[in-house]
Amino acid sequence: MKPVIRRKSSKAKAYIAKNKANNKNVGSNTINKNYLLHHVFFWLKNPDSIIDKELLVKGIKTLAAIETVRSLHVGLPASTEKRAVVDTSWQVSELMCFDDTDGQKVYQDDPLHHAFVDTYSHLWSRVLVYDATGA
Amino acid sequence: MKPVIRRKSSKAKAYIAKNKANNKNVGSNTINKNYLLHHVFFWLKNPDSIIDKELLVKGIKTLAAIETVRSLHVGLPASTEKRAVVDTSWQVSELMCFDDTDGQKVYQDDPLHHAFVDTYSHLWSRVLVYDATGA
Repeated sequence: MKPVIRRKSSKAKAYIAKNKANNKNVGSNTINKNYLLHHVFFWLKNPDSIIDKELLVKGIKTLAAIETVRSLHVGLPASTEKRAVVDTSWQVSELMCFDDTDGQKVYQDDPLHHAFVDTYSHLWSRVLVYDATGA
Repeated sequence: MKPVIRRKSSKAKAYIAKNKANNKNVGSNTINKNYLLHHVFFWLKNPDSIIDKELLVKGIKTLAAIETVRSLHVGLPASTEKRAVVDTSWQVSELMCFDDTDGQKVYQDDPLHHAFVDTYSHLWSRVLVYDATGA
């Protein structure tokens, strides 16, 4: 991976300034209905490769350093009851929480995110995203 | 909806006793890799019906009362950038966190969960579940 120079864009700076007051609520039970859950599922080109799986998990974890990412869970299919409605065909998942859609946009454009795609996208054959906001 | 009598099954009681010590970590940043994220997406029979959507959101919120549900987020599709990898065809989502797969099993078998399915399943045409554990 090329070294990533962590210069904040003016958009990222403006976003951070705007949200500084809200940040005190992070980790509390205060509900902000603008929050954005970004859930991504990855299907690997080599679904049985433990090495590829571990590599992707490692890569996803680098994304936690992006300033607007409030929480990150890297997931693997759980051994819950097999039911027709449960999709277990994927290999790795990431669930991120942002304060709002602007936070997610800053993340999409962050050099760390681009570096992640450049470095790890050869591992997956399919990616599926669900973006949900509070009801 | 029929009134739900909240008697705990012996399985639920055993689960709660076993996990009592762990409960102090709920809400902290302590990472328990056994945790289970249960993300469910609903496609409504009447996708444009605001009434049906609100009814389902209300129904999902009743599930928070189930003892093993550690957190519940009820979601709607977010207005993030339209991209081919983003599925925006669903109408309502629920994301729950459990301590582990046993907690999810207790939830599946809880009378409140059965009552939810009995009362609201006529609203949806399709449901899709992703169960992820920590990587």
